[in-house]
Amino acid sequence: MTKINSLRVHDVRFPTAATGDGSDSINKGDYSATYVELTTDGPHTGTGFTFTNGRGNEITCAAVRALAHHVEGRSLADCFSVDFVRDLTADVQLRWLGPEKGALHMATGAIVNAVWDLRAKVEGKPMWRLLAEMPTAELIACVDFRHIDDALTPDEAAAILDKGRDGLADRLAAISEDGFPSYTTSVGWLGYPDEKVRALTREAYAQGWRAMKMKVGGPIEDDVRRAGIIRAEIGPDALLMMDANQIWGVGEAIDNMARLADFDPYWIEEPTHPDDILGHARIQQAVAPVRVATGEVAANRVIFKQLLQADAIRVMQVDACRVAGVPEVLAELLLAARFGVPVCPHSGGVGLCELVQHVAIFDYLRVGTSLDGRMVEYVDHLHEHFTDPVRTNNGRYLVPQAPGYSSDLRAESIAEYSFPQGPVWR
Amino acid sequence: MTKINSLRVHDVRFPTAATGDGSDSINKGDYSATYVELTTDGPHTGTGFTFTNGRGNEITCAAVRALAHHVEGRSLADCFSVDFVRDLTADVQLRWLGPEKGALHMATGAIVNAVWDLRAKVEGKPMWRLLAEMPTAELIACVDFRHIDDALTPDEAAAILDKGRDGLADRLAAISEDGFPSYTTSVGWLGYPDEKVRALTREAYAQGWRAMKMKVGGPIEDDVRRAGIIRAEIGPDALLMMDANQIWGVGEAIDNMARLADFDPYWIEEPTHPDDILGHARIQQAVAPVRVATGEVAANRVIFKQLLQADAIRVMQVDACRVAGVPEVLAELLLAARFGVPVCPHSGGVGLCELVQHVAIFDYLRVGTSLDGRMVEYVDHLHEHFTDPVRTNNGRYLVPQAPGYSSDLRAESIAEYSFPQGPVWR
Repeated sequence: MTKINSLRVHDVRFPTAATGDGSDSINKGDYSATYVELTTDGPHTGTGFTFTNGRGNEITCAAVRALAHHVEGRSLADCFSVDFVRDLTADVQLRWLGPEKGALHMATGAIVNAVWDLRAKVEGKPMWRLLAEMPTAELIACVDFRHIDDALTPDEAAAILDKGRDGLADRLAAISEDGFPSYTTSVGWLGYPDEKVRALTREAYAQGWRAMKMKVGGPIEDDVRRAGIIRAEIGPDALLMMDANQIWGVGEAIDNMARLADFDPYWIEEPTHPDDILGHARIQQAVAPVRVATGEVAANRVIFKQLLQADAIRVMQVDACRVAGVPEVLAELLLAARFGVPVCPHSGGVGLCELVQHVAIFDYLRVGTSLDGRMVEYVDHLHEHFTDPVRTNNGRYLVPQAPGYSSDLRAESIAEYSFPQGPVWR
Repeated sequence: MTKINSLRVHDVRFPTAATGDGSDSINKGDYSATYVELTTDGPHTGTGFTFTNGRGNEITCAAVRALAHHVEGRSLADCFSVDFVRDLTADVQLRWLGPEKGALHMATGAIVNAVWDLRAKVEGKPMWRLLAEMPTAELIACVDFRHIDDALTPDEAAAILDKGRDGLADRLAAISEDGFPSYTTSVGWLGYPDEKVRALTREAYAQGWRAMKMKVGGPIEDDVRRAGIIRAEIGPDALLMMDANQIWGVGEAIDNMARLADFDPYWIEEPTHPDDILGHARIQQAVAPVRVATGEVAANRVIFKQLLQADAIRVMQVDACRVAGVPEVLAELLLAARFGVPVCPHSGGVGLCELVQHVAIFDYLRVGTSLDGRMVEYVDHLHEHFTDPVRTNNGRYLVPQAPGYSSDLRAESIAEYSFPQGPVWR
């Protein structure tokens, strides 16, 4: 049985801030990864990461090191239980720095994802297949139901996963042929001038995209003007999503969305502070039928639980590596299914597309079991640094086939972009 | 005008885990401080810290270093505006690691508190007096109302602070004579055997304490037995508070409090996950008239806002250094006043008593303006390491008089307990 020998962490940063890619109302980042490698006594290396925005990546690296003793020397077989998850999330000293939030929880996600990547490689399966084929009891055994069992019991979760076996082969056949629906965020970053927005929108439409996301949260007149440009380019039928990246207050979000309603937004993403469950609920009531979407910085399953309980979101955007890795993402997918809310994972950054394609496909195959309202975000950044990059065709993700979680960075990229010693940063 | 030259951060850890002091259902810590010193071009040094639980203190130290450039070289006069707060809390790259939560936000608290300590020293006033005497407009100008203005507008906050001037001198005279009410947590840590609990309870009662807190969240039969011991010692009139340190699920909390109701608890603290606003609201409804109390790990003002909006807590336990320092604590005190909920600050740890005495006194003098239901937690740990330690008499805090926030550690203590190079850790 595979044993984990050691954990190595790399501080990898891509200098994206200079170009305006990835800039929105709140963030202007050098897209970065706190990248974990688990060496073993076997042929495989498990990899996982959490995405950060540049400065501060050394903090999540330090958090990974603080947690490393929980996996070093451990048998891989011993890493798929609630006890394992709690060794990391409820460490009696480290927990104070969260609990289950912020830098420490992101570091936990990087480590736990590396453990799962390792397992998928050992079993020779892409992550979506590993999960889709796992017995229900094994999946349930990984999930920490503490603090969510008032909304979802293990038995209810098991029923969802059991039911998800029905028709699984047909669903897999469908997406193997057609790919998985997605939308693009690459057209409307705040850093782009109007003419660049127009040109990128036209180009994306020509490439087959029928769902596009723009950033809002600048001066409202600018948002209105840019929305007009994009809507004019894509016509009335394509979906236009808007993303405020948390900048608005609750009342401000409601007021601004009244202005932007003219452009028929499909959803408003992150309209206010991500911790504000009650605020999101008020906004959702006010802007319906426009959907409220959030999740990329939702700290953990307890936040998602409440967003669902309060009918505060109608699109759930899980992030694959802000929470404690695969088992917590699974908890969130199950909560969404329990409440009948579609999951459209957050993506972009460094390698998030690579991860969430597995999440979305697994969700479709075994949990949510529908494509209705499901789309994976697509951002065309930095894929070239991965050994198994996402592949898209006509606005859809092709189903990944390589074993693992598609999380391996190319060795040359690690060397070149390591901070501060890599050639790019020297 | 004072200029901040440089920021130094010390990783200071006290080996408390070995004794069982400070152990509860979730935490078993080596009480530690991420201790910040701001050197200036004048005679004063500003100090601030965030409390951590041992391992991981290097993470908050790293976070302080990542934020240091926002204060180094800055004029002190430029540190008392919303713009200053947002330079730290909305740093375009670091914000991703929160936002406003976890290690990064705790580090922000350490720095911001050091800035305020510096100002209090420059003005020659203890922190409570600096705040109590500040013009309303100056206090309001420090507070970031973004994301809380749906519950409290700047005008409403100003009205509270203006009204707080009435009778201020009388209130000050009263606590100058009598001290500020407090309660003790030193009797019922989970790590203590029954006989030690009994002896400590008896001793505390003899010292004048009429409000005591016990830890719960172990096996319920143990909790029941220990509650019986303490209630028998203190009689029916003294207050008995219970603290579950987040271990319970929502339903479990309600069930267990039904068992513990026999011992007439005054409040149940941290009955479940600190992010669970809706869960706390359900618990508060179920356990009333017992009060739900929480706040020591509430991540920020947005969480407190919702706990109040949802009638989820009837005692608010702000922490002086988990949130972004004095201005965010001020926001939380104002929110509590707006909703009519008493503030009983969290204390204990390293130096938290030293800080929160100022918070509670200022709240009494200018914001909450009542002692009804107000108590400061008191834990008899580690005061000897501070140059201006808390002083108590007959179960009450005496009003501190030295300029600053009482946050200066003794130089010898820093040297001896620095991790990992100090003599204690070598």
